Amino acid sequence: MAKPLRVGLIGSRFMGKAHSNAWMSAGCFFELPRDIVMSTICARDRKATAQFAQRWGWTNWTADWRELMDDPAIDLVDVATPNHVHAEQAVAALEAGKHVACEKPLAATLADARQMRDAAAKAKRRGAMTFVWFNYRRCPAVAFAHQLVRKGRLGRIFHVRASYLQDWGGPSTPLLWRFDAKQAGSGAHGDLNAHIVDLARFLTGEEVVEVAGAIEHTFIKERPLPAGEGTLKGKGARRKGRSTVDDCVIFLARMGGGAVASFEATRLATGNQNRNRIEVNGEKGAFVFDFERMNELLWWDNTLPSAERGWSRIMCTNGGDHPYADAYWPPAHLLGYEHGFVSEAADIVKAVAGRKPVCPLPDFEDAYRTQVVLEAAIVSARERRPVAIKEIG
Amino acid sequence: MAKPLRVGLIGSRFMGKAHSNAWMSAGCFFELPRDIVMSTICARDRKATAQFAQRWGWTNWTADWRELMDDPAIDLVDVATPNHVHAEQAVAALEAGKHVACEKPLAATLADARQMRDAAAKAKRRGAMTFVWFNYRRCPAVAFAHQLVRKGRLGRIFHVRASYLQDWGGPSTPLLWRFDAKQAGSGAHGDLNAHIVDLARFLTGEEVVEVAGAIEHTFIKERPLPAGEGTLKGKGARRKGRSTVDDCVIFLARMGGGAVASFEATRLATGNQNRNRIEVNGEKGAFVFDFERMNELLWWDNTLPSAERGWSRIMCTNGGDHPYADAYWPPAHLLGYEHGFVSEAADIVKAVAGRKPVCPLPDFEDAYRTQVVLEAAIVSARERRPVAIKEIG
Amino acid sequence: MAKPLRVGLIGSRFMGKAHSNAWMSAGCFFELPRDIVMSTICARDRKATAQFAQRWGWTNWTADWRELMDDPAIDLVDVATPNHVHAEQAVAALEAGKHVACEKPLAATLADARQMRDAAAKAKRRGAMTFVWFNYRRCPAVAFAHQLVRKGRLGRIFHVRASYLQDWGGPSTPLLWRFDAKQAGSGAHGDLNAHIVDLARFLTGEEVVEVAGAIEHTFIKERPLPAGEGTLKGKGARRKGRSTVDDCVIFLARMGGGAVASFEATRLATGNQNRNRIEVNGEKGAFVFDFERMNELLWWDNTLPSAERGWSRIMCTNGGDHPYADAYWPPAHLLGYEHGFVSEAADIVKAVAGRKPVCPLPDFEDAYRTQVVLEAAIVSARERRPVAIKEIG
Amino acid sequence: MAKPLRVGLIGSRFMGKAHSNAWMSAGCFFELPRDIVMSTICARDRKATAQFAQRWGWTNWTADWRELMDDPAIDLVDVATPNHVHAEQAVAALEAGKHVACEKPLAATLADARQMRDAAAKAKRRGAMTFVWFNYRRCPAVAFAHQLVRKGRLGRIFHVRASYLQDWGGPSTPLLWRFDAKQAGSGAHGDLNAHIVDLARFLTGEEVVEVAGAIEHTFIKERPLPAGEGTLKGKGARRKGRSTVDDCVIFLARMGGGAVASFEATRLATGNQNRNRIEVNGEKGAFVFDFERMNELLWWDNTLPSAERGWSRIMCTNGGDHPYADAYWPPAHLLGYEHGFVSEAADIVKAVAGRKPVCPLPDFEDAYRTQVVLEAAIVSARERRPVAIKEIG
Repeated sequence: MAKPLRVGLIGSRFMGKAHSNAWMSAGCFFELPRDIVMSTICARDRKATAQFAQRWGWTNWTADWRELMDDPAIDLVDVATPNHVHAEQAVAALEAGKHVACEKPLAATLADARQMRDAAAKAKRRGAMTFVWFNYRRCPAVAFAHQLVRKGRLGRIFHVRASYLQDWGGPSTPLLWRFDAKQAGSGAHGDLNAHIVDLARFLTGEEVVEVAGAIEHTFIKERPLPAGEGTLKGKGARRKGRSTVDDCVIFLARMGGGAVASFEATRLATGNQNRNRIEVNGEKGAFVFDFERMNELLWWDNTLPSAERGWSRIMCTNGGDHPYADAYWPPAHLLGYEHGFVSEAADIVKAVAGRKPVCPLPDFEDAYRTQVVLEAAIVSARERRPVAIKEIG
Repeated sequence: MAKPLRVGLIGSRFMGKAHSNAWMSAGCFFELPRDIVMSTICARDRKATAQFAQRWGWTNWTADWRELMDDPAIDLVDVATPNHVHAEQAVAALEAGKHVACEKPLAATLADARQMRDAAAKAKRRGAMTFVWFNYRRCPAVAFAHQLVRKGRLGRIFHVRASYLQDWGGPSTPLLWRFDAKQAGSGAHGDLNAHIVDLARFLTGEEVVEVAGAIEHTFIKERPLPAGEGTLKGKGARRKGRSTVDDCVIFLARMGGGAVASFEATRLATGNQNRNRIEVNGEKGAFVFDFERMNELLWWDNTLPSAERGWSRIMCTNGGDHPYADAYWPPAHLLGYEHGFVSEAADIVKAVAGRKPVCPLPDFEDAYRTQVVLEAAIVSARERRPVAIKEIG
Repeated sequence: MAKPLRVGLIGSRFMGKAHSNAWMSAGCFFELPRDIVMSTICARDRKATAQFAQRWGWTNWTADWRELMDDPAIDLVDVATPNHVHAEQAVAALEAGKHVACEKPLAATLADARQMRDAAAKAKRRGAMTFVWFNYRRCPAVAFAHQLVRKGRLGRIFHVRASYLQDWGGPSTPLLWRFDAKQAGSGAHGDLNAHIVDLARFLTGEEVVEVAGAIEHTFIKERPLPAGEGTLKGKGARRKGRSTVDDCVIFLARMGGGAVASFEATRLATGNQNRNRIEVNGEKGAFVFDFERMNELLWWDNTLPSAERGWSRIMCTNGGDHPYADAYWPPAHLLGYEHGFVSEAADIVKAVAGRKPVCPLPDFEDAYRTQVVLEAAIVSARERRPVAIKEIG
Repeated sequence: MAKPLRVGLIGSRFMGKAHSNAWMSAGCFFELPRDIVMSTICARDRKATAQFAQRWGWTNWTADWRELMDDPAIDLVDVATPNHVHAEQAVAALEAGKHVACEKPLAATLADARQMRDAAAKAKRRGAMTFVWFNYRRCPAVAFAHQLVRKGRLGRIFHVRASYLQDWGGPSTPLLWRFDAKQAGSGAHGDLNAHIVDLARFLTGEEVVEVAGAIEHTFIKERPLPAGEGTLKGKGARRKGRSTVDDCVIFLARMGGGAVASFEATRLATGNQNRNRIEVNGEKGAFVFDFERMNELLWWDNTLPSAERGWSRIMCTNGGDHPYADAYWPPAHLLGYEHGFVSEAADIVKAVAGRKPVCPLPDFEDAYRTQVVLEAAIVSARERRPVAIKEIG
């Protein structure tokens, strides 16, 4: 019997919950080479963390993340904290000899990302592995599109059209940590463009080589302070604070293979709640993925007789046919958001055990390439000029 | 140069307008073997008819439909009047040696339909042709589906699921002629089920052989009288009158080839304005047509590799590929409702000139088969029992 | 601290997996009044059951379901076995003083269902509760539609149009237990119509009062025996066996409030993999739910200004707004098939603890009403006549 | 009785056909203040033009466009020729005292456009009117969206996302005039971006103020010569020629009111045949128009209770509710591509007669503003820098 993989997780908010569920469920749905042990959860609020541990089945809890580094009973540290602490925690874990799985974006700044990439390269020589939670790669529809491209079904690629549109950032949304550049690094850009730059690179197998033009914009410059923080004594009125991040970043780019690409991330696209959409048009075929209908891939086979060409809505839920689908339910018994994390946890366990994951896992080096593109977009927007990727990193 | 085809039209309401447009446009869009001459329009209101004639380019007008029968300068009489006068007008025209194109349903009663079929058979021996305006057959998407079935692309047919849902018949809709059994024969049944029974027969190439069960229902038993008719003097309140037709008829049937079928027509399907929808599921393929997206055919090719099967949304607008499309605009420059009539007018001219229409044209015999199915459904609903089609006609 | 609820589960196939996941996850996502203890799993194959227990976290396992009945450490027995053993197992559990949660349909025969209903009534007086896993009620979109109806947003209901279309039952599908009337009771009918009859009753709050006509049909009369069972020695050819269940049952009905309804279940609707769809048209509003897009409700508000009426695609994923959504993820981070079970497990725990579930839970009496409708449809199909529901039960 | 409006048309290809149909049909569908007389058609091929005249009902024909200018019996000259001759013909017509309706884009070069604008301004003082066939403004769905914006239903606008995607420009498409910069001025840019820049300006009521970045790209640098032109004698092989226009132009922009905008035109977006799509996200509402479903407007009312917000698919076909719909057919009896031209012809007649068109008609001044934006995009792409609109014109 193989040694189990013992996991320590830092973070218990949205991502802490998603990762806990992933570690809990991966071994149920997938036949894994090593059992998963949910060893220790770490978060700042002691009482809430103790409760969280009990609820999700973590054996231990702590409020001090450094304890995980020192614990010989932990094999992998999962970093699900705000972006500005990724570097410190991930590097410490790598130096402690742990494997590290880090939430995206890799870091809040390019300097942090570079440090993490370098630490990962060093640790790799000692056998430590790194992973980044670009969970959308593991939507069966996305992983299936990736296979189609690999098989040459698209032919020469002309266009990549990627956007991640949300609308929760209206003027009444309070000044959460995500609107603070110190904690978040950026706004929609790091949060959302990180995902679609990764998807574009993953799906086409091509690198972005130039950002040709960009706009970075903050529509809502002041926001109400969060409840409890901002009320003026005895007045009831909410004080306001300054948002220091972008609400949207949109940029044009060229891919290594000659395709023209566009990327847009925004929190003010009214009517789009979580529209992570990518369209790729090739000479022989094209596809559209839209996360709001994440079980479906729109596939256009340009080699069919012209009378029969159309956007085919493929329900990517057939075990045997579509990646990851056989682990879950029968055809068209839909999967949801969380399954991307469950499937990634399963692939991480496989990778650590020396097996091949179902589809390629991003490591720190890979995520660093995405971070460089994000940086190039910001430089392009601020310096109002095209920026070659190799200028940046 | 071939002799032109001289047309006389009876009716100037909704269908009078649709047919006038068809006769005006058919020769512009299509290369026709005979020119169309819009000879005479006939309707009851003299002043309005004179104006209508001028507007749509009819050379003459009259308020007496019998004048058309006596006019040697008319080759084809187009009957676009309420259902209860179809028989009298069509039979008179046939007896006068004219070709006849009649609006659907063929007639208000089965007795009328039978009389028309017999007159058509007799006239046919003298060279007169009959046509029925089942316009939906000539949506490119429908005609393309018809070709797919003919080529064996569906294989054995399991299911036919047809419905024509409208929602204009709510309680505030006044007591128009369509709610009067004497004029209309029936309500949603003759108006809407006529279309989908024709489509089912046309698309599958199979006849309905049994109605297994049916419901006929009138939800709104009393309706306000139309403006002008129903106002109580000095009161303003609207008087009500009794609706004598069905609001919906729904029935189950078996097709000659073994398929199980369902048909539903209703005017109270809130949210469905003109949803003429038919789905056919076969062993090798399936399709869905929905008139509210009339340019599209949803096609499922069950012979593709299972990983790539999906509902393919084919825009049936490619000249060369899709029937009728080459007469109009480039791909995805959409067609509308009226084009079914334009294309049918063109096919009628071809048929009269001895050419083959793009897809089969229904004659009175064909429309009579549809009428028999409608009658069987009513008998089934009223006698609360299955009804074999051969019992009826 | 409340006493935990200790669960014993019978069944480890598709439903055994879905229920295990539900019991595992319910307490993670929901704040529950009692902890869930996954006590004992029971299934026939000893080795596989031991593995299943370990994988999904069941403390004990057994191959003898009667052990669960005798175990005082089990509070609730969950029956996830083929239909023909529901009655024996559920009644035994009720007699042993357990709460019972049973998979749908309630039973394979009406006689079994009646026995279960009676046992449940008796046990209820002793405090035992019964539940049936009509999981689709707990799709947030369905539960939200239920609220709209309760609030009077549809007004008078005219039409219910329900269908559950699958396509896995083609001629090459082997003779699984689901095609054996002894084990399954029926084919598509009990499997699929059970769901949509429950949904129609749940969503409208009205009972079916008459089946007006029905067709029961078996398209594929012989099927290959399953691998291992049917190979002729030394030949390789697959032997065939007789299917003794329907492939489709379709029927027309009348609801207590005057609506006209149709129901269709089939396994041969090529292109429809799991299309559980219900449309309800009312005077003031209408909705469509389609499980293949389970996160969305199509809602037509007929009281809006007519220019602005349309089918509104509501993503039913907002915590605070849509039932169950607050337990899971942020808006438009989609839910999947399994969440219906997780939410039902949570509601069962609440109900057992005397709390109100988020939306009504079906008990044996409720599921018996559904079973009566299914029986009426079969009687109507076989005796070729309308059947009043009160004739049956 | 008002004097009729006598029209002379130059051009008999795709646009010649669309305009002929518009002049023929406008007076049938619409109640117009002046009758339309289809006076003279002009095109280069004498025989084909004579046939065209007969087919579409033009009284006279000529191969010399200058004859139209000299003909006192022509009130309005309609210019439907390739872009590079617009200026010469339109200016001549204006100088001859005619009203002019010109196809879009206004001209092949900014210099031409400026000349046309100046001529129009001068002629305006003498009472001559100018019009540009931006036909998409008159899709009922677009005109309805325009009304929603005017009524303040969107509030502050954050995003404009416009793209016009076609896919007919693959490598096998021959070197038509549209690929020759001398005749066409540009490729996808003038052909397609012209439409969506007009739509963005029309729909938001805001001007583009800056192009922030742009890419102009020619994927297919050499194309086969058209049949007849390119065959090497005795060889059968097709010779190739150089494409001198863009295949795609994509650019980022800022609107006068602060919105961030993107525009993309391409002929290589495999799977998109005629996808003219614009999305506008405002604080109070948002809409999406997609020409491939031209009868529908997706409308998101952000002021509804949050539980009921969704993309509402409004079928913009209700007479009384939706612009232009009352001229044609009952609700959901769809309109097609050509109706935009018919409705524009009707509005032109109204405008010439001093009546108010249903929605604003673009004149040369207005189309010149669009042309300036197109020029700014090209300058931005070529000089690789942001370009302020006021730099250009």
